[in-house]
Amino acid sequence: MSEAASRRIPDVTVERLPVYRRAAMDLLSAGMRAASSDLLAKRAGVSAATLRKDLSYLGSFGTRGSGYELSFLLGQVDRQLGLDRAWPIAIIGIGNLGRALASAPGFAGRGFRVAALLDVDPHVVGQFVNGIEILHLEELPRMADKSQIAIGVITTPARAAQEVAGALEAVHTMAILNFAPVVLQVGKGVAVRNVELATELQILSFHRLHRF
Amino acid sequence: MSEAASRRIPDVTVERLPVYRRAAMDLLSAGMRAASSDLLAKRAGVSAATLRKDLSYLGSFGTRGSGYELSFLLGQVDRQLGLDRAWPIAIIGIGNLGRALASAPGFAGRGFRVAALLDVDPHVVGQFVNGIEILHLEELPRMADKSQIAIGVITTPARAAQEVAGALEAVHTMAILNFAPVVLQVGKGVAVRNVELATELQILSFHRLHRF
Repeated sequence: MSEAASRRIPDVTVERLPVYRRAAMDLLSAGMRAASSDLLAKRAGVSAATLRKDLSYLGSFGTRGSGYELSFLLGQVDRQLGLDRAWPIAIIGIGNLGRALASAPGFAGRGFRVAALLDVDPHVVGQFVNGIEILHLEELPRMADKSQIAIGVITTPARAAQEVAGALEAVHTMAILNFAPVVLQVGKGVAVRNVELATELQILSFHRLHRF
Repeated sequence: MSEAASRRIPDVTVERLPVYRRAAMDLLSAGMRAASSDLLAKRAGVSAATLRKDLSYLGSFGTRGSGYELSFLLGQVDRQLGLDRAWPIAIIGIGNLGRALASAPGFAGRGFRVAALLDVDPHVVGQFVNGIEILHLEELPRMADKSQIAIGVITTPARAAQEVAGALEAVHTMAILNFAPVVLQVGKGVAVRNVELATELQILSFHRLHRF
């Protein structure tokens, strides 16, 4: 699929591709080679119509009777998501959460590799996590020159997050995964995904209070 | 606001309430007592029209000229989100991520308290994190009797997550924050929020690949 065509994939579809990817992997692990849209959709927690529509953006069509060939589907999704390479990521802020992410086998899985761990605390700089030395944030430009950091992961306290986002933008890191409870102000070209843990709990609290 | 009325608050609005809450808190910390919808909206990263519409569901209306009175707004949002109490939460799976959450000051903030840490690994059970003893998962029913676990946080490996979700449902924990890369199958009344770290990276990878 050309870049021009993929540009038209709606964001909501992009957000579901990783879910289809996992559903396909789970079914492959279970020994299946093909699956119906009904089964894939059930695994992904969406309607079969949504799944068929989403996958049609990839030029992927199931066959009546035999359904989607799973390893072919997986390859298509991976190519579309850009998981057929290893994007270098930097984690900035190596407290408990940064450490957990740096050492979680499932976090920087296929498609990613942790290229840099950065902090500003002199007690933390110089330590190793999972065989990677924690460097001072000042080293970010050098690390970016060396490794072309594709994605910056911000796990700093809230007060430091905006400055770190600016530092990432300055070295042309155009994708940020932000765990700090701050709305980051970044340039138009920078993609930001926020993982807000307190927010998630608050939304569950609302449901717990009102919906039962 | 009555429960019947609050039922009609759209999910997208509920998801933005925590963001408005934080914007109001930030402005209060900066010494402001009131703020215009424009300023609040900018801080929250939404349009002023969206913010005004969302807050109107709470029966909260800004005053032309002086805007929203921040501490009143905060009180309304907190009451709506159910943060005017301390929901007991249980974290199940005390690996790196579970430990990070158990000791993160910002995670179980206002409105929540960590009531139980549970695992099945005999090397982990009996350890303490942040002054709380890690108990065996078998103790969940007893802890739920004692503390009425309102929210279960699943930080187990993927293969264990569904069983843990079932155990939480069995003790009437009707809200689950799931970090495991699995689509949980739960009953209709159970609210699940998924935090999928690999998924977030994959979405950023897509943007990195196609949008720049």
